[in-house]
Amino acid sequence: MKILEEKIKSEGIVLGSDILKVDSFLNHQIDPFLMLQIGKVFAEKFKPNSISKVLTIESSGIAPALMTSLQLQVPMIFARKHESRTLSGNFFSASVYSYTKQTENQIAISKKFIGPKDRVLIIDDFLANGQAVQGLLDIISQAGAVAVGVGIVIEKRFQAGHNLILSKKLPLISLASIDRFENGQVIFCKKEVASHAN
Amino acid sequence: MKILEEKIKSEGIVLGSDILKVDSFLNHQIDPFLMLQIGKVFAEKFKPNSISKVLTIESSGIAPALMTSLQLQVPMIFARKHESRTLSGNFFSASVYSYTKQTENQIAISKKFIGPKDRVLIIDDFLANGQAVQGLLDIISQAGAVAVGVGIVIEKRFQAGHNLILSKKLPLISLASIDRFENGQVIFCKKEVASHAN
Repeated sequence: MKILEEKIKSEGIVLGSDILKVDSFLNHQIDPFLMLQIGKVFAEKFKPNSISKVLTIESSGIAPALMTSLQLQVPMIFARKHESRTLSGNFFSASVYSYTKQTENQIAISKKFIGPKDRVLIIDDFLANGQAVQGLLDIISQAGAVAVGVGIVIEKRFQAGHNLILSKKLPLISLASIDRFENGQVIFCKKEVASHAN
Repeated sequence: MKILEEKIKSEGIVLGSDILKVDSFLNHQIDPFLMLQIGKVFAEKFKPNSISKVLTIESSGIAPALMTSLQLQVPMIFARKHESRTLSGNFFSASVYSYTKQTENQIAISKKFIGPKDRVLIIDDFLANGQAVQGLLDIISQAGAVAVGVGIVIEKRFQAGHNLILSKKLPLISLASIDRFENGQVIFCKKEVASHAN
């Protein structure tokens, strides 16, 4: 997605060997027009898949997931994160390990909102090691629902998440695919949109 | 806002004397069309105020704030919550006490994204005791910016937040104003939209 890559080039800040800071438009300050465009692209790609729910995790996934759900005309659900809190039996839950923060969180979704009839699209802001997507897939499986695909705003292709999702035969759309960081610069993968939907 | 009140009546669950659960459309599962309508109403009400930024707190404020910012054509910023973590000097921060959870959180906004030229609209999903709004006002003041108004999706008029905001001479728009809970039912204030903007 051209405008996204340009935004990353002009505003993204590379920290160390594997962190990209995009807090000016994606995960602290938000550019609502860019989110709308992102939602339109995801919706167009996944429309043939008869999605019934869009799923993400608080907080940075909410903006792109909301715009996608608006375009697909279905509800969006964001999983809540709980630190070592006992959840009641009304929730599906899964563990998500964050390599960046080195913490283990429980994520949870109310059993009221996801069930065997659902065809679920996962949306998230970043794909690194794939732990968040893995946790959501775990919850989708507990609910007896079907995971239809994964839409990612920015993936770091050099980390494990990309191959983890492909190994599950899940369609993956990443709007910006980063091959590597080089001298503090972002080098994108050659294909503009890394589509594995077909 | 009629459709919001109807949604609260049909899907909201009253717990005890002061909790309203609306997790089917506002703060866990999200109805994107309702959020779009909410954004349109806030934008229309506050458009004359030359807003430059929309401000909220993660996570439940993000959806209504994003839709408002889309309509106003300005960026949205969500404050991040930190539990007793030391913040660097690059952030404005404030303390927010949650009566529901009985916890004190730090909220923080990067100094890069708010400054003396900004005219800020605060958006949040709920107004109860007003602690979250108070924290955001604190940050706006630290930044030397101007708070232009407050837009709330659901206010519990019987708690302290409503009068707290009015005491600061700030315009307050609440799309659903709850007068009280009675036998597990929601009783709204008589005026459909509690507008104090003029």
